[in-house]
Amino acid sequence: MQVRIRTIRKAMAAQNVQALLLTHLPDVHYLTGFTGSNAALAITPRKAVLFTDGRYTVQAREEVESARVVIAKKKSAQTMAAAWLEQQQLTSCGIDGTHTTIALLGHLRKAVSGRLRRGFFQPLESPLVAAQREIKDAAEIRRMRQAAALGARLFDHILGFLEPGITEVAVAAELEHQARLLGAEAMSFETIVASGARSALPHGRASSSRIPRKGFITLDFGVILNGYCSDMTRTVHMGRATAEEERAYAAVLEAQESAVAAAKDGVTCGDVDEAARSVLKRAGLARYFTHSTGHGVGLEIHEGPRIAANQKQPLAEGMVVTIEPGVYLPGRFGIRIEDTVVINRNGCEIITPSPKAWIEL
Amino acid sequence: MQVRIRTIRKAMAAQNVQALLLTHLPDVHYLTGFTGSNAALAITPRKAVLFTDGRYTVQAREEVESARVVIAKKKSAQTMAAAWLEQQQLTSCGIDGTHTTIALLGHLRKAVSGRLRRGFFQPLESPLVAAQREIKDAAEIRRMRQAAALGARLFDHILGFLEPGITEVAVAAELEHQARLLGAEAMSFETIVASGARSALPHGRASSSRIPRKGFITLDFGVILNGYCSDMTRTVHMGRATAEEERAYAAVLEAQESAVAAAKDGVTCGDVDEAARSVLKRAGLARYFTHSTGHGVGLEIHEGPRIAANQKQPLAEGMVVTIEPGVYLPGRFGIRIEDTVVINRNGCEIITPSPKAWIEL
Repeated sequence: MQVRIRTIRKAMAAQNVQALLLTHLPDVHYLTGFTGSNAALAITPRKAVLFTDGRYTVQAREEVESARVVIAKKKSAQTMAAAWLEQQQLTSCGIDGTHTTIALLGHLRKAVSGRLRRGFFQPLESPLVAAQREIKDAAEIRRMRQAAALGARLFDHILGFLEPGITEVAVAAELEHQARLLGAEAMSFETIVASGARSALPHGRASSSRIPRKGFITLDFGVILNGYCSDMTRTVHMGRATAEEERAYAAVLEAQESAVAAAKDGVTCGDVDEAARSVLKRAGLARYFTHSTGHGVGLEIHEGPRIAANQKQPLAEGMVVTIEPGVYLPGRFGIRIEDTVVINRNGCEIITPSPKAWIEL
Repeated sequence: MQVRIRTIRKAMAAQNVQALLLTHLPDVHYLTGFTGSNAALAITPRKAVLFTDGRYTVQAREEVESARVVIAKKKSAQTMAAAWLEQQQLTSCGIDGTHTTIALLGHLRKAVSGRLRRGFFQPLESPLVAAQREIKDAAEIRRMRQAAALGARLFDHILGFLEPGITEVAVAAELEHQARLLGAEAMSFETIVASGARSALPHGRASSSRIPRKGFITLDFGVILNGYCSDMTRTVHMGRATAEEERAYAAVLEAQESAVAAAKDGVTCGDVDEAARSVLKRAGLARYFTHSTGHGVGLEIHEGPRIAANQKQPLAEGMVVTIEPGVYLPGRFGIRIEDTVVINRNGCEIITPSPKAWIEL
């Protein structure tokens, strides 16, 4: 954590940011290890102080080494942090405009004295911590591998559980229970189990619908393990498929593998998206691919970069992103295949090793 | 949902708000029924339009009756909503400063033309929808009762499961699995299972620690059922307790019952907090009660009002709030007892009917 704070200080110096006030909890977690639900982290060139409340007196002391801990009593942690920053002989302090609400900015401004109030807190053009978090360090990649491996084990397990007649919710329940028993802290998002015509809902969370005798089931799920999120999707088929279903599956698989093959350090996110999209275009399915190709993942399930059409941002070594094209034919069926990959210099490494070839149950 | 939109329009008219742009998803859910993960809802005196993206084409059509649905293609749903509002011959539009980030406000301002840009989007002093959501309507209270009843069933179930040697995580896993099998969509927050000395962590999420032969276990958990959150806490004791533990438990229980007895329409939140705090003061335990007494609950696990020291806001009929005093003796033990109650004219009704008397396992 000390190294991460040193790195953020370098970014601060490079951008003439005198101090930083961080209130987005995953950022605080990333820089200090603190996992409580309320915190403000103030960073100056020489000091780092984490403010939280009385619920976390013991926990903060146990978790946080890279910052001094202050327990806010009468005032909020955020107000205390603002007041502390004011005493540090600074003329301004950067805040993250993508996570700071208008109301919080108002509270922070009220907490500093009149003379400084107006200009003291400055929303930064580009959030420094989010940019740093896009590139995972070795410890993070290790944890992400572990989370992804747990996800893959869950997929193996659930294949043996799927059968016609059980509800989607029962499938999700079994998957989530196993996740917990295998050590997951939680799921990283609401488990998607979308079967039959419901597979055409890209975000069809598990419902009381029953697994059909014939048709696709899309399983999109992730766990949180040691703070880090996994994310993977597989689509399997119950019973005999139609030729059209098999063709569509083959096209999505080719699109996914084509995007995986394109992903490496230096390639733009837009080009990776195009690698998937162009395959589906050739198959006449592009209009059914109604979302972007992927996103960064880490302490949060959705992080930068965005792998979407026309995104100029290049991938970089150490990024961990999902690659998840899909097609959705309303009222009929849907298919999505998703891996999480670690970007390296010559390509990328898939850390969600579950099979992607056609599975008929 | 139509009624809710009519009510918000009355509040808009009363506060001279010409239009409202809502981007906080629970607010959108509340007013339209839409449960997707991306949406912007624009409300004018005569029109209501929900903007979302291509992942939700089918789902939005199924869920939303109280607004027209527009699927954003090239631009974001938020940008589309801003552009649409600009065409409605308005001079300004209210936004919720407590949920709108500085960055989103910047994007919205860029989406409207130069002349209007600066003043068009106005953060509201008090968020209108949050205020409306504090008072639950009959349909909401019905759903909250169902969610709370499910929570109580889970507590019964887990009592038969607790035994020395199993991990806290295994307890949480069992509880969450049952929740799913009984119909919960998800848990409403990370399940807290804090045993032995860990019970002194007010937010001790389930860990790999094992249930001890002797000591407290705090179980704080909630489900989401039909969109609504339940929230309850019980603390039970494994093995024989010390006289000090029993005294502390009796004090927390008296504090909790005293706050429940105080809670009714017209009483300030500060007075309810004081009802609990003064009991613990008399017992010499006030310094170990390190958090506030409760909070509103509904579509979100934390809503208004805040039941905390010196809060002047009065409770009102139809509010649904938690009452959850606790004491935490660092390194030793902790106790919290929490009910969810519906405020009515003459008092309040507990909807989490699990026993609160001392339980020794």
